[in-house]
Amino acid sequence: MADRIPLALVGIGKIARDQHIPSIAGGNDFVVAAGVSRHGKVEGAENFTDFDAFLAARPDIKVVSLCTPPEVRFDMAKAAIAAGRHVLMEKPPATTLGEAEALSEIAAKAGVTLFATWHSRFALGVEPAKQWLSDKVIQSISIVWKEDVRRWHPGQAWIWEPGGFGVFDPGINALSILTEIVPGHIMVQKSTLEFPENKKQPIAASIAMRTVEGAPVTAEFDWRQEGPQTWDITVQTNEGELRLSKGGSELYIGGKEQASGPDREYAGIYERFAKLIRSRQSDTDYQPLRIVADSFLCGERKVVAHFED
Amino acid sequence: MADRIPLALVGIGKIARDQHIPSIAGGNDFVVAAGVSRHGKVEGAENFTDFDAFLAARPDIKVVSLCTPPEVRFDMAKAAIAAGRHVLMEKPPATTLGEAEALSEIAAKAGVTLFATWHSRFALGVEPAKQWLSDKVIQSISIVWKEDVRRWHPGQAWIWEPGGFGVFDPGINALSILTEIVPGHIMVQKSTLEFPENKKQPIAASIAMRTVEGAPVTAEFDWRQEGPQTWDITVQTNEGELRLSKGGSELYIGGKEQASGPDREYAGIYERFAKLIRSRQSDTDYQPLRIVADSFLCGERKVVAHFED
Repeated sequence: MADRIPLALVGIGKIARDQHIPSIAGGNDFVVAAGVSRHGKVEGAENFTDFDAFLAARPDIKVVSLCTPPEVRFDMAKAAIAAGRHVLMEKPPATTLGEAEALSEIAAKAGVTLFATWHSRFALGVEPAKQWLSDKVIQSISIVWKEDVRRWHPGQAWIWEPGGFGVFDPGINALSILTEIVPGHIMVQKSTLEFPENKKQPIAASIAMRTVEGAPVTAEFDWRQEGPQTWDITVQTNEGELRLSKGGSELYIGGKEQASGPDREYAGIYERFAKLIRSRQSDTDYQPLRIVADSFLCGERKVVAHFED
Repeated sequence: MADRIPLALVGIGKIARDQHIPSIAGGNDFVVAAGVSRHGKVEGAENFTDFDAFLAARPDIKVVSLCTPPEVRFDMAKAAIAAGRHVLMEKPPATTLGEAEALSEIAAKAGVTLFATWHSRFALGVEPAKQWLSDKVIQSISIVWKEDVRRWHPGQAWIWEPGGFGVFDPGINALSILTEIVPGHIMVQKSTLEFPENKKQPIAASIAMRTVEGAPVTAEFDWRQEGPQTWDITVQTNEGELRLSKGGSELYIGGKEQASGPDREYAGIYERFAKLIRSRQSDTDYQPLRIVADSFLCGERKVVAHFED
């Protein structure tokens, strides 16, 4: 444990407990030396309720991982960068593209590592899918991302607030895979956003996009899916069909399974973060957030039935 | 006239007639050698109704100026760039950030000049305002942009469609001045968008932003202003107040008028375009469009009264 990099975990909620803490413990690069949270605590670490107090008290901890909801991320990331810390950000990196782009610029000036993570990019099937697609001609892409919000986001009221993105909170995971496996810009052409009459964010979205070469890309996002959950991306190419299933963890080419194994998305995130810090680089790709912003920008709004979560 | 660069004007509507044709004629750099439009024509030029037919028929015309509504701009710009033409785009450059960013990349690869214009940046007061602000501390900024849509956009149905941006069509002019005179990113924090019950785009918007340094920036856009029209940007600094009035054409510092004179926004655009072509450079700053996208992304929607234009 002696050569692990001490790290502060900020925002000790569901995602920190379910993913970050076990993945850091299971890896070889970091140790959680401090927790910062209004309510949560990390066992075996020094705990703070105030972020500025942590920054002042522990100048020895050079790395912070921000797992808070996105509304407070900009101010925290800016303060951490100003204090010379390397920063990892959960997805989405910020509530607006402006905040995200400003952070990239601030981190570059300060010479620290900024890592805007997209955990789905570390799903098992994604890298082999990218490799396989690299010399194929893409004819069309279909994304179907349908899950039960009550099951995956219990009590997370912020997802329905402006900046919480509604069904784009899971949908951005699909968009992060899409923009990883397909080179070049993906452009939104049309979108329909379904807002429950009692909610400020969409519960479903249908997006028509295209690649720069003109291949059609469609995405269907829905948060009202009970029973089996669907997280599929299907790509038709000149050499047959590629399908990523279960959020990218299963890969099928021509119907034949290629890759499978236990999930290690967050393990992959922390391995990459350690490499970025060592090589003094940043990784901030905001294309998934840009596609969400474009979908809102050109979206047609439909009001749908009241929804209780 | 002999050494003027022949140019094709594409989309012969209100803005082409009111601004582009007289500004090109009044300048020294270009001559309108062709017009491309389904309905309009340019006197004294060869006229086409089809853009691809123009590209094929006139390889001698190396420069195109796209004055069409933004929905068709991406495909035209892409085709023009592929055919080796230098391209000027009216504002807004595209219907989404994705299209705009893709065009920058395509033009850079092709080695042609792409100029995403923001005409308000060429208003008389803007450059001296930028100079004066460059060594001041900005404390706050207030934008008030209120005009009568019936007067300025008669019969332009596309402004109410998705991609037309509604009141952000004039509002983006203010945002283009804002991002020119203030260095660094401007970040949207909150916005309220007012949609008439019979329209797909907002008729009014209220946006709370901030500079990276934390100074508050507010914008009030309204398309229901009858009587006197208001296009003002007021900046409070550590050395007093700067105010740009009448869309940037009048500049006041500490209440004292600094600059005034006849409008030459589009003359400035074509002078700059000629310089960009000669130096083989592009100018594509999409910050104004990014602020619009962010305002939709985190916007709260309010439905307001039916509106007939």
